[in-house]
Amino acid sequence: MDFHKITFVPHNKSIEVRNGENLIRAAMEAGVHINASCGGEGVCGKCRVIIEEGEVEGGLSERLKKEDIEKGYRLACRAKIVGDVTIRIPVESSVDASVLNLQSTPRRNAGIREFDFSELKEQGLFIPPIEKKYLELPEPSAQDHLPDVTRLVSFLKLNHDEHRLMVDLPVIRKIPDILRKENFKVTATMARPVHEGRKTHIINVQPGDTTDRNYAIAVDIGTTTVYGQLIDLISGEVLAEYGDFNGQISYGEDVISRIMFAEKGEGLEKMHRVVVETINKIIARIVRKSGVDRDDISSITLAGNTTMTQLFLKVNPRYIRRAPYVPASTIYPPIKAAGLGLDVADHVAALVYPQISSYVGGDIVAGVMGSGLYRTDKLTLFMDIGTNAEIVVGNKDWMACAACSAGPAFEGGGIEFGMRAAKGAIEDFSIDPVTFEPMNITIGSVRPKGICGSGLIIMVAVMFEMGVIDNGGKFNRNLDTKRIREKDGVWEYVLAWQDDTQIDRDLVLTEIDIENLIRAKGAIYSGCQTLLEEVGLTITDLDQIFLAGGFGSYVDLEKAMVIGLLPETDPEKITFIGNASLLGAKMSALTNSIRHDVVEITKKMTNFELSETASYMDHYVASLFLPHTDLHLFPKLKARLDERRKIMKSQK
Amino acid sequence: MDFHKITFVPHNKSIEVRNGENLIRAAMEAGVHINASCGGEGVCGKCRVIIEEGEVEGGLSERLKKEDIEKGYRLACRAKIVGDVTIRIPVESSVDASVLNLQSTPRRNAGIREFDFSELKEQGLFIPPIEKKYLELPEPSAQDHLPDVTRLVSFLKLNHDEHRLMVDLPVIRKIPDILRKENFKVTATMARPVHEGRKTHIINVQPGDTTDRNYAIAVDIGTTTVYGQLIDLISGEVLAEYGDFNGQISYGEDVISRIMFAEKGEGLEKMHRVVVETINKIIARIVRKSGVDRDDISSITLAGNTTMTQLFLKVNPRYIRRAPYVPASTIYPPIKAAGLGLDVADHVAALVYPQISSYVGGDIVAGVMGSGLYRTDKLTLFMDIGTNAEIVVGNKDWMACAACSAGPAFEGGGIEFGMRAAKGAIEDFSIDPVTFEPMNITIGSVRPKGICGSGLIIMVAVMFEMGVIDNGGKFNRNLDTKRIREKDGVWEYVLAWQDDTQIDRDLVLTEIDIENLIRAKGAIYSGCQTLLEEVGLTITDLDQIFLAGGFGSYVDLEKAMVIGLLPETDPEKITFIGNASLLGAKMSALTNSIRHDVVEITKKMTNFELSETASYMDHYVASLFLPHTDLHLFPKLKARLDERRKIMKSQK
Repeated sequence: MDFHKITFVPHNKSIEVRNGENLIRAAMEAGVHINASCGGEGVCGKCRVIIEEGEVEGGLSERLKKEDIEKGYRLACRAKIVGDVTIRIPVESSVDASVLNLQSTPRRNAGIREFDFSELKEQGLFIPPIEKKYLELPEPSAQDHLPDVTRLVSFLKLNHDEHRLMVDLPVIRKIPDILRKENFKVTATMARPVHEGRKTHIINVQPGDTTDRNYAIAVDIGTTTVYGQLIDLISGEVLAEYGDFNGQISYGEDVISRIMFAEKGEGLEKMHRVVVETINKIIARIVRKSGVDRDDISSITLAGNTTMTQLFLKVNPRYIRRAPYVPASTIYPPIKAAGLGLDVADHVAALVYPQISSYVGGDIVAGVMGSGLYRTDKLTLFMDIGTNAEIVVGNKDWMACAACSAGPAFEGGGIEFGMRAAKGAIEDFSIDPVTFEPMNITIGSVRPKGICGSGLIIMVAVMFEMGVIDNGGKFNRNLDTKRIREKDGVWEYVLAWQDDTQIDRDLVLTEIDIENLIRAKGAIYSGCQTLLEEVGLTITDLDQIFLAGGFGSYVDLEKAMVIGLLPETDPEKITFIGNASLLGAKMSALTNSIRHDVVEITKKMTNFELSETASYMDHYVASLFLPHTDLHLFPKLKARLDERRKIMKSQK
Repeated sequence: MDFHKITFVPHNKSIEVRNGENLIRAAMEAGVHINASCGGEGVCGKCRVIIEEGEVEGGLSERLKKEDIEKGYRLACRAKIVGDVTIRIPVESSVDASVLNLQSTPRRNAGIREFDFSELKEQGLFIPPIEKKYLELPEPSAQDHLPDVTRLVSFLKLNHDEHRLMVDLPVIRKIPDILRKENFKVTATMARPVHEGRKTHIINVQPGDTTDRNYAIAVDIGTTTVYGQLIDLISGEVLAEYGDFNGQISYGEDVISRIMFAEKGEGLEKMHRVVVETINKIIARIVRKSGVDRDDISSITLAGNTTMTQLFLKVNPRYIRRAPYVPASTIYPPIKAAGLGLDVADHVAALVYPQISSYVGGDIVAGVMGSGLYRTDKLTLFMDIGTNAEIVVGNKDWMACAACSAGPAFEGGGIEFGMRAAKGAIEDFSIDPVTFEPMNITIGSVRPKGICGSGLIIMVAVMFEMGVIDNGGKFNRNLDTKRIREKDGVWEYVLAWQDDTQIDRDLVLTEIDIENLIRAKGAIYSGCQTLLEEVGLTITDLDQIFLAGGFGSYVDLEKAMVIGLLPETDPEKITFIGNASLLGAKMSALTNSIRHDVVEITKKMTNFELSETASYMDHYVASLFLPHTDLHLFPKLKARLDERRKIMKSQK
C-alpha cells in the first residue's frame, strides 16, 4: 500500500495517509480545520482548498467557478489523495498558525489488540475442550458380542489410554447405525472435563474420519446487538462472524424495560424465545457462510449481561431491578443447547459465562477472561462503556468491579439529534478557532441527519477546548457567530443549516445535550474514582486501561480525556479490546483453561454497589464539569488550556 | 384369623384352612380329588361331597335332590368352611385309600420373600439417594447482595457442612420466587452422588418445611405389563402400586415383533411414545392413589429387558434381533425424566437399570440387585420364567447368565385353549386315578374357557403322574375313559364338555399343547444345565433358587419339578421374589448402595449365548421328556412313579 505525504499550509502540519484517502478526512486526522457543513457530501461547497503542489483526484464541482478551478481550488470532501501534495486552507481572517493549530490534538483511537490462539498456546493455556479421535473398531462376531457402546469405550481404553469415559444418551441413540455405516470406522468427539477427575463425555460419533472438522460457536448476547462467531477449533481461526439486532429490542430498548416485559404474563417465555430466534438466525448465517456441517459443531459458548443471560436461560429477572438488586445466580451449569431451543445438534452443550452481580454480568467476566486481565501483573482498568457502563480494576491477584448507569447519551439517547452510529451521523467534528464555523464529517460522507456518540464526545471536547463552551457546558454567549443562539429558552449551536442536512430543520447541539453527556461521563469517571478509592488506589496508579464495547472502537481517546470520560493518561496505555464479551466466549470455546479458571476468578472479583458507597455521590458531583472540578487530574489538558488562553490573549 | 381342620375320607387326609375357605379349593390344596368340570361355578353338579361331621356354609343347589341334602350332600364348590369338618368324597368304584392318594403332592407354592427397607438398614446398605433439608436463610439487604443461588449454597456450606454442591437450571429458574414465598425459609432437595467425589445436585427448592415429604417412583417396564410403585423414601413403604398392559402390545406381543415395528418409518418414535404413555398413566394412578404432591417426587427408577429399555429410551433396537445380537449399550447415564416425556417435575432424573446383553436385560440386573443375589455367599440359581426366560447362576463372587427362548407356552401361547391368567382360566387341576374324571378349578370360580400357564403345568404334571400321559407326552390310548379321544388325527383329553364351559365347544388339552409345553420347559431346564456346566457345576451344587416374574408366584413347585421345568430340589430352597424387576427398581430408589454397586455387578456377570454353546443342543434334546431323559436327576419323582406302579399293579 502506498502512502503519501500531505502538507497543510498555513498550518505547516504534515500527515502521511494511504493512497486514495479522502482529503477532508486526512485534514481531520491531521487536526486541520476545514469548514464543512454537509458532512462530506459535496453540496455545501464550503470545504474549498487550494492544491499548491502535487495533484489530487476529483474535487471538482459545480459549486466551484471555472477560474477558481484553474487557480487550483478543489472541494476537499470530494478529493482523493493520489500522491504527495501541499494543500492551502483559505482562512477567512488573518490569524497566525498558532491559532489555526488550536485545533486540539489529532484524532487518536485506541490500539486494537487481538488476543489469539497462538498467544494461548505460547502461554501454555491451550487445553482443548473438544477433541476428535479416529478409530477403527473390530467388528462384532459370534465370538465377540460386545454391545456397541462398550465396544467403542473399551477400544478407547485399550488403544488410546482414555479412561473415565461417559456416553450421553443422544450418542447412544446414534451409535448402532453410525458404527455400521463405514464398517466400524468412526470418529469419536470427546468433550474433556473442565475439572480434573471428572469424566470425558463422548458427545458425538461420526462415520469415517472427520478429525479435521472440529468447530465451535461463540456468542455475545448484547442488549442491542447479538454477535456470533464460528470458530475452527484446530486452527483457532474465526471462519465466520455475524451480528444482528437482538430481537428483544421490539419489547424495550434497555434491560429495565425488558425485565418489565418479562414480568408480565408469558413475557419471560417470549423474551427467551425471541433472543433464541436471534441467535439461531446468526447461527444459520455463520454456518452457511463458513460452509461447515452442523454435526461438526461441538460446543457453543455464550456471554451476556446478567439480564440478557437470565432471559436467555428463562430465569425470571424480576429481582434484578428491585432493591437490593440480586440476580438469581452467578454460575450456570452446562446446559443442552438444543433444550434451550438453539439450532445445533442434540449433543452440543451450551456454556454460559458466570455473572458477578445484577449489573456486572457474564459479558464483563468474559472480557476479564478474554482480555487476559485475570492473569496480568499490571494494574488494569477495564471499562465497558454503554448505557450501563461496567468497570473492573485489578490484576491477577485481585479484582474489584462496579456498574454505573451512564444513561443512553453515548448511544444517542437524550440528545436532541442523537442517533446510533449509522449513515448520516456526524462522527467527526472540528471548529474554526476564529470564525467558529464547523467541520462536520459524517458516516458515509452524506449530509448529516444526527450525531452519534463518538461524534458527540469529539464535538463537546473541541468546543470546550476552543472556548465555545465553558467547563459547566454552557455556550459562550459573547462569541461572534450566528451559530450560537437561544431558542425557546435553550442555548444551542447550529451544526448544519437546514439546507445542508437530510432533515427539514437546522441540526443543532443544545446545552441540554451537553448536560446529558456530562452526566453520563461523570457517572463513569466517578465510578472509576470511587472503585479505585475503595481499594486504596488512585487513577495515577493504573498501568493500563482496556476499553471494551462497540463504543470504544470509535472513540477518540484524547477527546474522551478532554471531556473527562477517561482518566488522562498516555494513550499508549489504552488498549481497545473490541467486543470483550465475544472475545471471552471465543476464548472459552478454544481452551478449557479459561473454563477452568473462570469460576475462581468470579469469586475473586469484589463487587461494589456504587449507590451504596458513600463517596460515590461526592465524586459524581465533582465530575459534572469539563473535564472535572479538579483540573489537576488532567494536567496535560490544563497545560493546553493555559497555552490557548495565552495565544488568544496575544491575538487580541 | 380362625383356622379350621378338615378331614377328608376315605383318604384320611387332613388340612387346616382359614375360616371362609372354599371347600373344593381346600380339597385341591390337600391333594384330594373331587370331580369338577365347571371350574367351581356350581353348574355341573359333579362335586358332590357328604358332610359327615361338623357343618359348612352353603353348598346347596338345585342340582342336589332334597333327600341327598338331608343325607348331608353338598356341592363342594359352593361350600364354605366355617368350622372343623369331616368330608366324605363319594368314590364311584371300590378302591383303597392308597389309590385315592395317588393324587400326587399337595399344592406347593414358593415362599414369598419381601426384601425390605429395614433389611437394607440392618445391612448398612442404606445410603439415601435423595435428602431434604429445611433452611432458614438470611434475607438479602443493602449490606448483603448475595445472589439467590449463592445465598442458598453458602448457607448449606456454612451451616450444614455441605460441599461440592451443584444447582441445576430448572432449580435456578425456581429459586428467586420460591425463596420469597415464605421469607427465605425453604426446603432444599438434594440428590446425592452415587460415586464418591462427585457433586450433590440441589434438584429442588420448595417454600417452607417439606422435609417429611420425600418420594420416588419405581417402574418395571415389562413386555406385557408395566408396573409402577410410589415409594416413601423416609419409611421405605410402598404407598401405591399399579400395573397396566404395556400400550405397545397393540403393535406386537413379543419383543421381536416390537423391534420389527420400531424398524419401520416412525415406528421407534411410536413405540417410545406409547410406552411413555403407559408409564404416565401408571404415574397418574399411583400419584392420585397415594395423594402425594408431584413436586415431592424426586426420582424415578426404571428396569426393563433390553428391548423395552431401548424402546423406552428411543434407542434403535434393530441389532438386537440380528446376529450377532448386540445391544446398543449396557449402561445408560441418568436422563432428565421430563425430557423423555414422563409426567414428573422437571428436576427428576430417570435412572435406568443397565443391561447385560441383548437378551439378558435390566429387569434381570434389577432382580439380581433387588433380591440380594449379588451379595449372598450361597450358590444361587435365579430364574425369570416367561416367553424369554433368563437364568443367572452365581453369588457375590461371580455370576453367569443366559437367556433361553422358551416360547409363549407359559403365557398360553401355542396352546389350543391357552390363555393369560384371567377369569375362567383353569388354574388348578387334578384327575381321578380310577375314572380319570377331571377336577377343574378356575380363576374366579366360573365355568372354564381356557388354561393358563400355571394350570397347564399342573395339568400335565398330574396326568403324567397318573399315567394318563407317558414321558413322551403322549396320551395312554388304553385307558377306559371317553375323555381321551382322537380328533382330526390329534389325541386330546376333554377337560370340560361343551355345556360345562363358557365356550361353545369341548375344552381340551391336546398332545400338541403338551409338546409345546415340553419344548418350553426343556429350553429352560437345559439352559440351566448348560450354564452350570459352563461354570463347572451341576444342579445338585445349588444352595437356593430364586423364582422371579409374575409366573413364579402361581406355579406349583412340585408340579414344575414333575414336568422337569425346575430342577428337583427341596422346595424350602426355592424363594419366590415376585416382580424382581420392580423390586430392583424400588431398591435403587431407596439406596445409593445399589446404584453404586450395579455397574460393577454387571461387569461381573458373564453372559453365555446358549445358541453358540455346543452342549446346549444335547441338553435340550435330552430334556424333551417328562421330566427328562435322565430320570436320576429327579430321584423323588422316580420314587413316587415306582410306588405308583406298585400300587396300580396290586389293584389289578
